[in-house]
Amino acid sequence: MNVTHVLIGKPLQTKDLPHQAVSKLVGLAVFASDALSSTAYATEEILIILSIFAAGAGSAMWATNGAQLAYSIPIAIAIALLLVIVTISYRQTIYAYPKGGGAYIVARDNLGEVPAQIAGAALLTDYILTVAVSISSGVAQITSLFQGLLPYKVPIAVGVIILMTIVNLRGVKESGRVFAVPTYFFLGTMFLTLGIGIFRALSGTLLPIDPNSVEAIQQFELAPEAGFGMMFLILRAFSSGCTALTGIEAISNGITAFKEPKSHNAAITLIWMSSLLIAMFLGITFLANQIQAIPSHTETVISQLGRAIFGEGSLLQGIVLAATALILLMAANTSYADFPRLAALHAGDGFLPRQLTYRGGRLVFSWGIVFLALAASLLVIIANASTTALIPLYAIGVFLSFTMSQTGMVVRLRKISKLKPGEKIKGLETDLEYDPHWRLHMAISAFGALCTFVVMVIFAVTKFTHGAWFIVLLIPTLVFIFFRIHHHYKGVAHALSLSGRRPDVDARDVQTLILVDDVHAETARLVNFAKSLRHPWKAVHIAVNPEKAASVERKWGERIGEGELVIIESPFRQLAEPISEYIQELQAEKPGSFVHVIMGHLAMESFWEQTLHQNSSYIFTLALSRLENVVVTTVPYHIHIDDEQEHVSEEPEKMQAH
Amino acid sequence: MNVTHVLIGKPLQTKDLPHQAVSKLVGLAVFASDALSSTAYATEEILIILSIFAAGAGSAMWATNGAQLAYSIPIAIAIALLLVIVTISYRQTIYAYPKGGGAYIVARDNLGEVPAQIAGAALLTDYILTVAVSISSGVAQITSLFQGLLPYKVPIAVGVIILMTIVNLRGVKESGRVFAVPTYFFLGTMFLTLGIGIFRALSGTLLPIDPNSVEAIQQFELAPEAGFGMMFLILRAFSSGCTALTGIEAISNGITAFKEPKSHNAAITLIWMSSLLIAMFLGITFLANQIQAIPSHTETVISQLGRAIFGEGSLLQGIVLAATALILLMAANTSYADFPRLAALHAGDGFLPRQLTYRGGRLVFSWGIVFLALAASLLVIIANASTTALIPLYAIGVFLSFTMSQTGMVVRLRKISKLKPGEKIKGLETDLEYDPHWRLHMAISAFGALCTFVVMVIFAVTKFTHGAWFIVLLIPTLVFIFFRIHHHYKGVAHALSLSGRRPDVDARDVQTLILVDDVHAETARLVNFAKSLRHPWKAVHIAVNPEKAASVERKWGERIGEGELVIIESPFRQLAEPISEYIQELQAEKPGSFVHVIMGHLAMESFWEQTLHQNSSYIFTLALSRLENVVVTTVPYHIHIDDEQEHVSEEPEKMQAH
Repeated sequence: MNVTHVLIGKPLQTKDLPHQAVSKLVGLAVFASDALSSTAYATEEILIILSIFAAGAGSAMWATNGAQLAYSIPIAIAIALLLVIVTISYRQTIYAYPKGGGAYIVARDNLGEVPAQIAGAALLTDYILTVAVSISSGVAQITSLFQGLLPYKVPIAVGVIILMTIVNLRGVKESGRVFAVPTYFFLGTMFLTLGIGIFRALSGTLLPIDPNSVEAIQQFELAPEAGFGMMFLILRAFSSGCTALTGIEAISNGITAFKEPKSHNAAITLIWMSSLLIAMFLGITFLANQIQAIPSHTETVISQLGRAIFGEGSLLQGIVLAATALILLMAANTSYADFPRLAALHAGDGFLPRQLTYRGGRLVFSWGIVFLALAASLLVIIANASTTALIPLYAIGVFLSFTMSQTGMVVRLRKISKLKPGEKIKGLETDLEYDPHWRLHMAISAFGALCTFVVMVIFAVTKFTHGAWFIVLLIPTLVFIFFRIHHHYKGVAHALSLSGRRPDVDARDVQTLILVDDVHAETARLVNFAKSLRHPWKAVHIAVNPEKAASVERKWGERIGEGELVIIESPFRQLAEPISEYIQELQAEKPGSFVHVIMGHLAMESFWEQTLHQNSSYIFTLALSRLENVVVTTVPYHIHIDDEQEHVSEEPEKMQAH
Repeated sequence: MNVTHVLIGKPLQTKDLPHQAVSKLVGLAVFASDALSSTAYATEEILIILSIFAAGAGSAMWATNGAQLAYSIPIAIAIALLLVIVTISYRQTIYAYPKGGGAYIVARDNLGEVPAQIAGAALLTDYILTVAVSISSGVAQITSLFQGLLPYKVPIAVGVIILMTIVNLRGVKESGRVFAVPTYFFLGTMFLTLGIGIFRALSGTLLPIDPNSVEAIQQFELAPEAGFGMMFLILRAFSSGCTALTGIEAISNGITAFKEPKSHNAAITLIWMSSLLIAMFLGITFLANQIQAIPSHTETVISQLGRAIFGEGSLLQGIVLAATALILLMAANTSYADFPRLAALHAGDGFLPRQLTYRGGRLVFSWGIVFLALAASLLVIIANASTTALIPLYAIGVFLSFTMSQTGMVVRLRKISKLKPGEKIKGLETDLEYDPHWRLHMAISAFGALCTFVVMVIFAVTKFTHGAWFIVLLIPTLVFIFFRIHHHYKGVAHALSLSGRRPDVDARDVQTLILVDDVHAETARLVNFAKSLRHPWKAVHIAVNPEKAASVERKWGERIGEGELVIIESPFRQLAEPISEYIQELQAEKPGSFVHVIMGHLAMESFWEQTLHQNSSYIFTLALSRLENVVVTTVPYHIHIDDEQEHVSEEPEKMQAH
């Protein structure tokens, strides 16, 4: 317990659940890290895909002239436009759902159970990927600076996940101030970098990167796809770049955290966030083209930018990379809040194990945090901490949830369209109110839904063979599992229901058995308890070893000398099966009676000492729990080993196995 | 259970333990595979170490002239001499211990507990290494032939270990015939190869290997040790080659398996085995020099020999490699018999967990097999299935056990030296008889002990920085742990002892509590059982959630309507702590009474369904087992979910978490 207290901290009372409101500036810091941090890799992933074309076009050397890579600029503009559309559409959701309008809630409210579970499964999947991608990219920023750490990317990434898990199991007080520092530090350094970079580019002093200074991704890794044209690759590059949109939904999840007027403040923060994101993403893409950045496994594009703008190995290059790594860690950390919260929502509705709704000692959803950490670590290990390897799996879930959420808004606005001026009806989550501009609002949501749906299909098609197939299979599988779980909980509730009637609890016959392994002080305790119950009882020994059985029979007579001892043969050396059969015979003799099995348990002072014993009480309890009307009692016997005692007296009899 | 039956087979009765005796020819096949198979890598490992010298001497290219590698021949001759000494010495042990004279038994019999535990720890360690080394080398033979499999060495090796574990959990009937086939197949092909090879060498038609046909080990891997002279490297090469001696003790462990006269037959088999081993080892080393074999990660020396003698890609080269791989698998398999058997000996003496003495359903020591498999798999994964990486850890244990065993024999012969002609005294394991030649016999054992001790020190020194340090630390640590375990078991036996007196088992007061989570059909079952015991009882609810507590109180009145319901607050959402405190208060009121806690357990039909529930009965049982005089009863309630029922009736009330 003490190790847990040191790592996780002392337990907190339920009434300590934090209730505080944040301003727009703090809210931006809290909710924007996921979205803003994606600029650290979005441009790079576009360039990597475009370089396939460069390689596939037959150029033996790296296409340093940047002819094909220049396509990244129109692609980035298209992504920025998509971002504008999604932002306008989500702004409406924020006003419609002031109590929090995540995709799960909006879909559940308007589209029903199945779409809600689909949206939730998609988001849960993507939260895991956010951790894996952000940590991998964060570690890549660090190793860009300290190339000696390159071989240790995976252990560093997993180490960071473990650290973040401990911090989150302690419970992060979302005090805003802690979050504000890295977010504004990142914004500050990034806009400084972009400002100086653009100035130097326009004044013609920003020189391209020396191609020999970077270890470019090798041609064979790029696997140019035969038979696919340039258009396909451009769409794939667009898909990879769309990861910039992940995290944009964070504010709509967290509206309640804002100061009043909540919806209004959240909506303004959303627009700030999107504007900053667009500016940074376009700026980075423009400058990456200016310096003819070279996609590489050993140096990130951000590092190349820092180096080109501030000089190789300069302090400012280091600061840019540190700020980027920090914001990426913050982004991963948001998933540590979002994933357990969404999982608890599913579990509360009976679609995931109930345990996910329980708050641990530190008031956090501990099971959700642990599951997220395990899943993200597994992904990082499989992908070898490579952002590029993870990108094809990423963002499909987010775009599916965008589509669900906006479709839900369309359905909602259809209901609103039928209201008369001033009319208001009660909805499941929030009230539906007359809206004179419902036509415009519906058009925005519908257009947003269409765009995100089309982009999702582009993702699934262009990245299918690179890993997207996994997500395409995973999400329906998850939804199926969610509904199986739901079916189970409904069945249990039905089976336990008393349907309002008073149950029959009249006393029944009880047949008491004592399980005897050997005859010593622990056995005496068992007999003591059985006699205290003042029911008739029988002792039973399972004869795994016939010689031992004879000795038990003899010792029983000598030391206990009362009650009947039944010896049951076990030629196959099983413990549970012979006793089960014996109990079933007893039950057949007295139908409807309880069979009460009393067994001992040697309780040691430490876990390791406990493992030195057979702990057969666990095996028996598990095995006998299969039988109806069989009740199992465990009588613990505490062993305190005194380090002195063995010198005091000689070993009194041959030691027995327990 | 059914999956286990398919994989492991149906349980066997205790009386089916096999009792059969083997002839010398079959005994050779059963016990020699470990020793003979080491010829597959011993020569290669000598050459690898010598090539460090070649590399260190400043030659930029591989030393194809074989000048330094030729030292392998005198080294092999020295190892062969050592083998002769150990064989003669062990022959005496076989006669002295006709019931089985493994190092553990000989050391325990003559030197006492500590040396016995040291010898045992050393052997256990080496059995694990035998599996790891033999499987790694076996896989290397296969990948020499099918180079496309090279990247999959680790998964193949682990797969083989898993397969071998399943086979051994089924129980290998040591029917001899099964073992005879691969052993004699290997002996046949190997002597054919050596015969033709030597004939071709003498007739001058055996040409050196083309240096370009093999990917030699790269210089930087060899890490020539600055400051160490040639002598150090020669001693290190000698150490690596001494792995040829591992497995030589197998016959002395298994004397009882032979036909009468057991000792005599076993001794003759030992001499056959050693002779074959020396012939093969010297032959392979001689021919490897003739063909100027090149140590490599991608092709074994055996493969190069097969290729040089029979022609590249010839059927016979394939047969040689298959036979070698097969004998290596058989060698690993002997550890699957020896490790669990030795671990059971330790456990029987109370130095390892008792569970290791229990024979599983198939009459094998299942826990020992599983532990061996896990430890060997871990080693293979860490060492990347490279024999060369494992060799520095190997054979130290065996030589330590050789030293212990022979020292034990010296002590034994000292006792014998004091006997008069014809006199016989009772020993612990075997009788001590007058021996007119005790001086000669003692000299042989003492010389053997001295030689193996010196070799062990050479191992530890020359291989220390390459991994031997681990074994040097591991063996004392294991011995320490063994004695801690022994101390524990002695303490438990003391604590449980009734010392012959009749214990006090008079009936005491019992206070009965029912733990109530909610009020439904399962709760009714609990009340039903408590009433059947015909003792006064109280119900207790731990109020993690105050709203739920109020609802439980209301439903208790409506649906049960009898008995007292106590609500205990739990602001920290803990379950076990508040009930523990409450029980301690009850005990303080009535000292010496039993507190009997009755709780429910929802028993599901499948493991996965069970995981969807909190299973708090386990948590309570564990937590309450810390308290003295607290007895815990679990009343299972079986849930059968009918796939139809949810359509029949509406969900009767909001589902509850359990």
